[in-house]
Amino acid sequence: MSAMNSRKTHLAAVPFTCVNIDDVFWAPRIRANRERTLDIEYQQCKDTGRINAFRLDWLPGMEPEPHIFWDSDVAKWIEAVSYSLASHPDAALEALLDEVIALVVAAQQPDGYLNVHFTVVEPEKRWTNLRDWHELYCAGHLMEAAAAHFQATGKRTLLDAMCRYADYIDTVFGPEPGKKRGYCGHEEIELALVKLYNVTGVERYLRLSKYFVDERGQQPYYFVQEAIARGEDTSEWDAKAHEYWQAHLPVREQSTVVGHAVRAMYLYSAMADLAGIYDDTELLSACQRIWDDVCLKKMYLTGGIGPSAHNEGFTVPYDLPNRTAYAETCAAIGLVMWNQRMLHLDCDSRYADVLERALYNGVISGVSLDGDKFFYENPLASDGNHHRQPWFGCSCCPTNITRLLASLGGYIYSVGADGLAVHLYVQGDMTSALADGTPINLRQQTQYPWDGAVQLTVTPAEAAKFTLRLRIPGWCQQAIISLNSTTITPTVERGYACIHRQWQPGDTVEIDLSMPVVQVAAHPEIPQDTGRIALQRGPVVYCVEGLDNTESVARLVVPPDTDFQVRFEPELLHGVVVLEGEALGVDEVCWQHSLYQPATAISYHPTTLRAIPYATWDNRTPGEMAVWLLRG
Amino acid sequence: MSAMNSRKTHLAAVPFTCVNIDDVFWAPRIRANRERTLDIEYQQCKDTGRINAFRLDWLPGMEPEPHIFWDSDVAKWIEAVSYSLASHPDAALEALLDEVIALVVAAQQPDGYLNVHFTVVEPEKRWTNLRDWHELYCAGHLMEAAAAHFQATGKRTLLDAMCRYADYIDTVFGPEPGKKRGYCGHEEIELALVKLYNVTGVERYLRLSKYFVDERGQQPYYFVQEAIARGEDTSEWDAKAHEYWQAHLPVREQSTVVGHAVRAMYLYSAMADLAGIYDDTELLSACQRIWDDVCLKKMYLTGGIGPSAHNEGFTVPYDLPNRTAYAETCAAIGLVMWNQRMLHLDCDSRYADVLERALYNGVISGVSLDGDKFFYENPLASDGNHHRQPWFGCSCCPTNITRLLASLGGYIYSVGADGLAVHLYVQGDMTSALADGTPINLRQQTQYPWDGAVQLTVTPAEAAKFTLRLRIPGWCQQAIISLNSTTITPTVERGYACIHRQWQPGDTVEIDLSMPVVQVAAHPEIPQDTGRIALQRGPVVYCVEGLDNTESVARLVVPPDTDFQVRFEPELLHGVVVLEGEALGVDEVCWQHSLYQPATAISYHPTTLRAIPYATWDNRTPGEMAVWLLRG
Repeated sequence: MSAMNSRKTHLAAVPFTCVNIDDVFWAPRIRANRERTLDIEYQQCKDTGRINAFRLDWLPGMEPEPHIFWDSDVAKWIEAVSYSLASHPDAALEALLDEVIALVVAAQQPDGYLNVHFTVVEPEKRWTNLRDWHELYCAGHLMEAAAAHFQATGKRTLLDAMCRYADYIDTVFGPEPGKKRGYCGHEEIELALVKLYNVTGVERYLRLSKYFVDERGQQPYYFVQEAIARGEDTSEWDAKAHEYWQAHLPVREQSTVVGHAVRAMYLYSAMADLAGIYDDTELLSACQRIWDDVCLKKMYLTGGIGPSAHNEGFTVPYDLPNRTAYAETCAAIGLVMWNQRMLHLDCDSRYADVLERALYNGVISGVSLDGDKFFYENPLASDGNHHRQPWFGCSCCPTNITRLLASLGGYIYSVGADGLAVHLYVQGDMTSALADGTPINLRQQTQYPWDGAVQLTVTPAEAAKFTLRLRIPGWCQQAIISLNSTTITPTVERGYACIHRQWQPGDTVEIDLSMPVVQVAAHPEIPQDTGRIALQRGPVVYCVEGLDNTESVARLVVPPDTDFQVRFEPELLHGVVVLEGEALGVDEVCWQHSLYQPATAISYHPTTLRAIPYATWDNRTPGEMAVWLLRG
Repeated sequence: MSAMNSRKTHLAAVPFTCVNIDDVFWAPRIRANRERTLDIEYQQCKDTGRINAFRLDWLPGMEPEPHIFWDSDVAKWIEAVSYSLASHPDAALEALLDEVIALVVAAQQPDGYLNVHFTVVEPEKRWTNLRDWHELYCAGHLMEAAAAHFQATGKRTLLDAMCRYADYIDTVFGPEPGKKRGYCGHEEIELALVKLYNVTGVERYLRLSKYFVDERGQQPYYFVQEAIARGEDTSEWDAKAHEYWQAHLPVREQSTVVGHAVRAMYLYSAMADLAGIYDDTELLSACQRIWDDVCLKKMYLTGGIGPSAHNEGFTVPYDLPNRTAYAETCAAIGLVMWNQRMLHLDCDSRYADVLERALYNGVISGVSLDGDKFFYENPLASDGNHHRQPWFGCSCCPTNITRLLASLGGYIYSVGADGLAVHLYVQGDMTSALADGTPINLRQQTQYPWDGAVQLTVTPAEAAKFTLRLRIPGWCQQAIISLNSTTITPTVERGYACIHRQWQPGDTVEIDLSMPVVQVAAHPEIPQDTGRIALQRGPVVYCVEGLDNTESVARLVVPPDTDFQVRFEPELLHGVVVLEGEALGVDEVCWQHSLYQPATAISYHPTTLRAIPYATWDNRTPGEMAVWLLRG
C-alpha cells in the first residue's frame, strides 16, 4: 500500500530497548521509578481495588465500585513494568506482572470486550456514552500496555487478548452500515491502535485508528446523537460545547488547541502518527497549525500546558497564570509524546526543544525525587500549600509518568534514511542499526544538563557513510563542535548540526553547548509574567523556594545585571546545580498604606537569591515557590 | 438612650438637597442621568413588566413571570427620581412617580407584606428561603426609596406603607420567642432600616437593623435551618460555604472581606451606620479590619472590587486580574456608600480617597456619557469585546448608578461639632448650617478634576468661629493653600488641612492641588500588574483605547521618563483631559518563534501614546483597552 510508505525524511525512534542511560540526571530518577514507584503504584492499585476488580466478582452494594477508568491505571502500570523489565530484568516483578496480566486477560468477555466497570457494574450501558465514560480510552491504554509488554518481553498473552478486543471494537465502530459512527470522548485509542499496528502489522488497526480520527467532529455530532438516544436534552450542545473533546470540527479543519489538554495531546499524537504512516499532508498541516497555537501562545515556560482547572485544559491565548496553573503532569507528558512524533516527521529542533523543555521541567516535576509522591497539577508559583500526594482518586498522572520514565531511552535517538539523529544529551549507550542495516553503537559522556560539554563516541560495526545530526538546543547561543579533537563548523539544518562523513569505529565528536544563566522574559501579552524574568540554564528552568531565601519569593527582584554563581551541590536534592546571586527585596513600608503608589516611590533593599531547578521543588520543607521573579 | 448619642467627632453629611453642582465633570453626567437615564430606566421597567407586576394580576402560565428581585429595580428608580426632583422639580416626572408609587403601595397586603413575586407567583413560599430569594433585600430597597421620596418631596405615601411593611417584618424576625431568627442572603434591609429610622425616629427600625446585623453568622446557621425545613441536604454547608453571604461568622468576628461584593458592601455600610449610632467600637473595629483587607489587598486602581464572576465577589489577596475583572458597578457604588459612612465616623482622608477613587473611575465607568448604556462588569483591560448594554436581565447596576448620580451632592460636604469638612472638590454651592445652627453658604469654583486649583468662598450668615477641613487627596504630593490671598500652612489632621478661625462672610480660601501625570505601580504581589504602570492624574485613572493608538495597547511600553502632554479637549468625550507622550512598542519579530526569550533579546520601536480617562472608554468605536501598560 504505497500511501503507507513513510517519506524518506521521516525518522524512527531508536527504541528504549536499545538505549542504556547512566547519566547524572535521569538515571537516579529511573532507578527511583523502578525501585519505588512501580511498587507504590502496584500497592495503590491493589489497595484501592483496581487490580482485584478484574476478578469481576463485584456485586451491587459492594464498596468500592469499580470506576469507569480504573482499568487504565492498571494498564499504564503494566506498560511501565514492561518497559522496566526490558532494561532491568527482575524475575519477581515479571512474575507479578504475569499474574496481573493473567487477571486482566481472564476478564475478557467471550466477544472480546474487556472493561471491568461495564462488565460488572453497568453492563447494560456498554457503548451508550462514548463521550463521558472512557470505554475506548481504557481499551487504548490496555492496547498500549499490550504492545509494550510484547515489545519488552516478547510475550503475546496480553497482546493476543488486546488484538481480539481491537477486532471486536472494529466490528462495533466504523463507517460501514450497521456500525456505530462513534469515537471516544477521551482520545487515546487512536494512538494505541497505531502501536498495535506497529507490533502486529495488522492494517485493520490502522484503519480503525484513522476512522476514529477522521470521524471526530463530523456532523451530525455523535455525542449529540447518543445523548438523544439516551433521552437527554441536547439543545445547548453546540460546536463550542464540543471543544472540550476536540470534537467541534473535523480534525483536519482544526487550527487551535481547545478543551481538555491531555485529550488534545493524545489526539494530536495519533494525528501525527497517521500523517506519517499515510503521508497525509493535510493531517500534518493541521498538526502544524495547532502546534503553533500551543507552543507560541499557550505553553508555560516549564512545558506545562492547560492552564485551567475548570476544563483541565486550554483557554485563550496568553492565559498562563502561574499560581493557579493546572498544567497537569499527563498533559506535559502528552506534549512530549506529540512532539516526538512531530520530530520524526520533520527533524526540526523546535519540536525537540519543546520536548526537552517539558521533560526537564513540567513532566519530571510531577514526581518527587524519591519516586513516592506525585503532582497532578504543576503550578509555577505557590503560597506554600501545594504538595505532591501519594495517590489520587483520579490517578492518571502517577502511572503516566512512570511509563514515561521507564521508556525514556526511546526519546533520545532516531534513525533516518541518511543517518542518525541525537535529540537529547543523556549519558549512556545506544546500540542500533543504520537504515542500511549496519550495526552501530553510540556512547554519550556528559554531565548534561548541569554542563553543556558532551562527548559522543560513534562506533559503527564497520566504517560507514552517514549523517550524524546533533541537535543545537534552542536555548543555546553558542555551540562548539569538534570531530576527533578538531573544531569543525558543520551545516546546521533546522537546529541540527549535520556531520556527513565516512565514520570510523571509535570516532569522537565533542559538542560544547554554552550554558550561561539566562534571564528569560515572556511574551508581553502574558499578563502574569510582565515585568518578570525566569532563570534558565540550559534546558533547566529554575525556581526560588521559601526555605532558600530570606526575602519572600513574591518580593524578590532580580536586577538585569545580576551575576549568578553556578554551583553543583551533590548533597542537595539528589545533586543539582543551584544558582546564587545578589538581588533586591521590595521594601514592605511602601505598601503599608496603599495598594498603589507612584512608581518612583517604591524602594528596595539588598538581599541574596538562591534558585533550584523547578522540577525539584517541594522535596524539602514545604513553603512558597515562584518561577517568575520581579525584574529589577 | 445615651448609647445612641453620636460621638462629638462624628460628622453628618450635608444632604444632597442642600447642594447644587454646576461643575465641568459631574454636572453633564447628572444632566444625562436626569434627562435620559431616568426615562430609559422607566421604559425598561415598564417594557419588561417590572412596573405592571405591581398590579398583582399575574396568573400562572403568563409570561413574563415576576422575578424575585424585580421590585428592587423599581424601588431604585423611585429613589433616583425622588433625588432628582429635589434639585430639579419636574411636574410631569413627579406625576409619573406618584403613579408608580400608587401602584406599589396598592400591592401591599393587609398584613403589611409587599413583594410581587411572593404575593402572586409563590405565595406559599413567603420567608422560606431567606438565603436565595431576596425578599428582605427587595423590602430594603423599597424602604430606601420611601426614605428618599419623603426626604425629597415631603410626601408620606410610600413612607407610611414601608413603615407598615417594616412593622410587619419586625413581627416576623427577631430574637424573641416565636419569631424567625433569620436574616437576608443579600444584605440591604439593614442599612435601609437605618434610613427609615433616620427619617421617622422610630427606634424599632434601628433595633431590627441591629438584630439583622448581629444575628448574621450566629450558630446554628439560619440558612442551614431553613434548608433543613425545606427538606434539603445541608451536609456540605459549612462555614466556608457561608462566606458568599458574609454569614460564616458573627460580623463582629469578621476580619476579611469574603463572598459577594455588593452584599458585603451593603452589610459593612449598615455596620458602620450602627457603629456610629450606638457608639459601638466593636462593630467599628470589625469595619476597620475589613477595610484594611479590602482597600490594601483587594481593590482595583479604579475602585472596582470583587474580581471574580464566579461569585460576583472576592477571592484571595492581590487577585486582581484586569481583563476578567468582574468589578460590578454596584460593588463600586457600595464601596462609596460604605466609605462615606466610615468617613463620618472618623474624618480620615483614606476613606475619602477610596470614595473619590471609585466615584471618578470604577463607578462612573458604569454608564455611558449619554446615559443610555451600562456596564455591569468594569474590567481594566479588554480585547474589544466588552461593551455597555441598554439593560440586563439582572439589572441592578443601571438603577443603582442612577440613584447615586442623582444624590451625588450628598457626598461632598459634612458638618461636625467643630465645623465643616470638604471631602470632594466639585464646583457648586452648598447651603447648610453649622452645628450651632448658624446658616452657612459655601461656593466652590474649580475645573476639578481637570485642574487642581479650587477657590472656596465661605459665607456664614454672620461671622462664626469654626474649623474648615479641606481634604488633601492621597494622590496629591503638594497642596498650596491661601486664605484671602495669603498663603497659609494649616495643620493637617489625617489628610485634612484644618483652618480654624473666625470666618467672615465672603472669606476666600484657595487650595492648589499639584496634579502631575503620575506613573502608578501596583503592589508587587498583584500578579497581573507587575512590570506595568498605570497613568493617573489627580483622581482620574487613565486608559488607552485602540482607536487612539497605532500600537496594540497590549504592546505599548511607557518609559519611566516619559513627558506627558496634558490637554483639555472640549469636543472629545464631552470634554476630557487627554494625555499624550512618546512611548515604545514591543517588536513583533521577537515573538514569532517562541513564547519565551532572553530578556536581552527583546527590542522596541518608538511610537506615541494617547490616554483618556478610564471612565470614558467604550464611548466611541469599539476596540481594545488597557489601564495597566508595560513599563519601559
